[in-house]
Amino acid sequence: MEFLNNLIQKIERKHIVIAIGVVIALSLFIYIIGALGPSEPKLVLVGTIPDNEYDPQEWGKVYPLEYESWKKTQDPRPAGKSFYKKGWDTDKIIYDKLSEYPFMALLFKGWGFGIAYNEPRGHWYMRIDQDEIDQSRTKAGGVCLNCKSPYMDALVKQYGNSFYSMKWQDAIAKIPPKHKDLGATCIDCHDNKTMGLKINREAFKKGLAKLGKKEYTRQEMRILVCAQCHVTYNIPKNEQMQSIGLEHPYEGSSWGNISIENIIKLIKKNANWGEWKQQVTGFKVGFIRHPEFEFFTRQSVHFNAGLACADCHMPYKRVGSFKISDHNLMSPLKDDLFACLKCHPQSKERLVKQIKEIQDRTISLLLKAGYHEAVVAKLFERIHNQFKDTLASDPLYVQAKDFYLEALYRLIYMGAENSIGFHNPEEAGRILGDSIGFSTKAEGLLRQLLAKKGIDVGQSINLELAKYLNNRGEHKLMFKREQEFKDPFGIVEKTVPRGSMGL
Amino acid sequence: MEFLNNLIQKIERKHIVIAIGVVIALSLFIYIIGALGPSEPKLVLVGTIPDNEYDPQEWGKVYPLEYESWKKTQDPRPAGKSFYKKGWDTDKIIYDKLSEYPFMALLFKGWGFGIAYNEPRGHWYMRIDQDEIDQSRTKAGGVCLNCKSPYMDALVKQYGNSFYSMKWQDAIAKIPPKHKDLGATCIDCHDNKTMGLKINREAFKKGLAKLGKKEYTRQEMRILVCAQCHVTYNIPKNEQMQSIGLEHPYEGSSWGNISIENIIKLIKKNANWGEWKQQVTGFKVGFIRHPEFEFFTRQSVHFNAGLACADCHMPYKRVGSFKISDHNLMSPLKDDLFACLKCHPQSKERLVKQIKEIQDRTISLLLKAGYHEAVVAKLFERIHNQFKDTLASDPLYVQAKDFYLEALYRLIYMGAENSIGFHNPEEAGRILGDSIGFSTKAEGLLRQLLAKKGIDVGQSINLELAKYLNNRGEHKLMFKREQEFKDPFGIVEKTVPRGSMGL
Repeated sequence: MEFLNNLIQKIERKHIVIAIGVVIALSLFIYIIGALGPSEPKLVLVGTIPDNEYDPQEWGKVYPLEYESWKKTQDPRPAGKSFYKKGWDTDKIIYDKLSEYPFMALLFKGWGFGIAYNEPRGHWYMRIDQDEIDQSRTKAGGVCLNCKSPYMDALVKQYGNSFYSMKWQDAIAKIPPKHKDLGATCIDCHDNKTMGLKINREAFKKGLAKLGKKEYTRQEMRILVCAQCHVTYNIPKNEQMQSIGLEHPYEGSSWGNISIENIIKLIKKNANWGEWKQQVTGFKVGFIRHPEFEFFTRQSVHFNAGLACADCHMPYKRVGSFKISDHNLMSPLKDDLFACLKCHPQSKERLVKQIKEIQDRTISLLLKAGYHEAVVAKLFERIHNQFKDTLASDPLYVQAKDFYLEALYRLIYMGAENSIGFHNPEEAGRILGDSIGFSTKAEGLLRQLLAKKGIDVGQSINLELAKYLNNRGEHKLMFKREQEFKDPFGIVEKTVPRGSMGL
Repeated sequence: MEFLNNLIQKIERKHIVIAIGVVIALSLFIYIIGALGPSEPKLVLVGTIPDNEYDPQEWGKVYPLEYESWKKTQDPRPAGKSFYKKGWDTDKIIYDKLSEYPFMALLFKGWGFGIAYNEPRGHWYMRIDQDEIDQSRTKAGGVCLNCKSPYMDALVKQYGNSFYSMKWQDAIAKIPPKHKDLGATCIDCHDNKTMGLKINREAFKKGLAKLGKKEYTRQEMRILVCAQCHVTYNIPKNEQMQSIGLEHPYEGSSWGNISIENIIKLIKKNANWGEWKQQVTGFKVGFIRHPEFEFFTRQSVHFNAGLACADCHMPYKRVGSFKISDHNLMSPLKDDLFACLKCHPQSKERLVKQIKEIQDRTISLLLKAGYHEAVVAKLFERIHNQFKDTLASDPLYVQAKDFYLEALYRLIYMGAENSIGFHNPEEAGRILGDSIGFSTKAEGLLRQLLAKKGIDVGQSINLELAKYLNNRGEHKLMFKREQEFKDPFGIVEKTVPRGSMGL
């Protein structure tokens, strides 16, 4: 103590004053610097949301910023940004997948998808699009609301299983009129009390249970709420071909490993999943819808890096002094790669280029797989026209049919997946390579069978595509030549010459 | 001035002493902190290297650390790290590509590659491997030294163009005995004065000139010195089938865009690039070698990100207080992903898993492409056995042969590329998908042709692989069943049943 007293005495009073002054000045400086930096984002909570509140406006009163961004899903996206997905852009063109991929018109001939198959316009229009498209597309009935209206499960509860097959116009009339046009909305993904993520679709809950995983992290939930709709499913039919439910083909699969192989196995196994008859071949077959969830989670690089759908399609954005998850969902390409640049900040131009490199390769294989499969369909048609069912038990026919279906489901899967391979580029190459392998093997067996029966089909098979592409449905839809995708590598025309396409 | 004088007088003498003390103490502190941190790596230069110095020992006197790391290329790599490239590991097994990929034994039957085709042991052994392998592999003569000995260009200069076709034993006898076994060495890539990178191979200089790019950055040079050997090339033959040179198939290509399509076009165009006769089909065909340069630079994600071969295969490492580019080149998998983790530090396990996902998919497609092509070869054999050349002008035959070759070159390309797709995964999927499309189309046309001629080949074609795999060459090499790669997705056996392989 004495030492300390001596020391203090030795320090002159004015030195102490200087020291205190320096400390105050420094603190002030640090405070000002801090105040200039970004403020801490915080949640606003101005009320509560009642249970079973479907109305987004009501949710919007509590979460106005998210609500505002969700409403923007009705705005068209900048045109010319995406190479192959031009759903709802400022050019206001509705893109016709059958014109983009003419082989689909041939393969899907026989039901709604072969009549009208538009690129979708996104969340705002998902229900509305159903009214505007050729009504052959809603023939499955009430079941079509499963991914389109938040009221689906309530209606099934109210009207029982017969709602699945209820005539379309009757089914949508059951939706409260105010919300007839409502697409994906707050209650589809959120808990009204905690705003936490929640799976609300009963069918998907059952499908998911088959994967055997019990608990999901928040990040996994940021995949699963999207997966309520962005998945494939099958609509089982009764003997009168009425829809009797909706099932996801997940039996025997696991989290991160829903393979196309297993999906096909289940479609083949479940006879009542045969939803339509392919007109050209006469085969009753199943279908595969937008398998974004299955494709992305099948060990893609972004999935394995821990990313969720929302990281790329609902990136956090700053609105005023708040940080929100953007509910105006779209392709990152149309959002100028805002989401991508958070992790890959080096160069937007390079990223765009790389996306194009990937999608160009996928498109090339997809077109090849499609046209090769179309050739096989025409060979089956030839056989059926000439020999009816008499060759159906010939081992060459039996094997060819099996290969044809293996190829078909892979092709439908990749044609329905909405990223043109980007969600999982290597898996895209594998699936399409296999599709090409199966279809073209089938072609060989049928050529052999026909030649054995004295029929020389020549070298190229006329696909007569114009026949399938023009005068489709109630609106007499026509092939839009300017929308057609061509192989960026020019390979397709070598094995399926342009002249044989009948376009 | 007066103001300043006044100010100085106002400051007491002892305050100035305190201030000087503080400055000295602070400087000392900063110096000590600096000394504790990492020292700046610096170059040692203890001498000069004479012009035309081939001896790595001499270069090693000036650059001892690089030399030491280069010498380590003779050490085996840890076994069990790479899934599909097991060239020279601590298990000491020499892996036999024909056992790994049995279809290659059938397709390459007719020349050296069909007799002995080992996974290479790396830079130290590149010349030595030539002595140890079945001597059918050195039949092309002196030209085989192009990628294997630093003396190649000096020998061509000394002995003229006849050195290309000089009998192999005579050719290697021309190398100074001390350096007979010398593989890739300092002078191959470095300027002796500046240690800068330099392209030394005359043939590659000519090939590169065809790409039309005039100047290369240092980073691009870190690709090009590797590309002196890790490229494909063709050996033109005279009428006596003697080697008359070595050419790279780059005419009409450009930097970053040497496509397989253009390589095939040139092989087809240059009749004297037909280097061998495929025994099963009787076709005289060209060949494609280790196209790492072409494949990687074809818009791969790592190439477009600005990476060079050396970034992944010669990463900078610390040796003592120096930082050197590791000259002990190997697969990053065998180096515990040291190079990868510099840019992707998150998780080694995840990276390894992702590499496997990519390579599994490539292998699956590669095997499918290979077996489908083998089936076509056997159909051609059947046609030739039964009809000699009489069907050779049939349009089905002509078209099938063209498709067969399109498929074959793509298959050889991907089979020879040493990354199992990793260097450019999407391009791998595209090339192999196209190979499958072409080969299987060819199969269909031949099935049709044979059936037209009254021959029913049935469903599966017996590949008789054991015939091609066993008793190969002077050492009666046998199929090593345990080395065979199987399709990780189990698809290959659906279109080419195991029972039909004749294994």
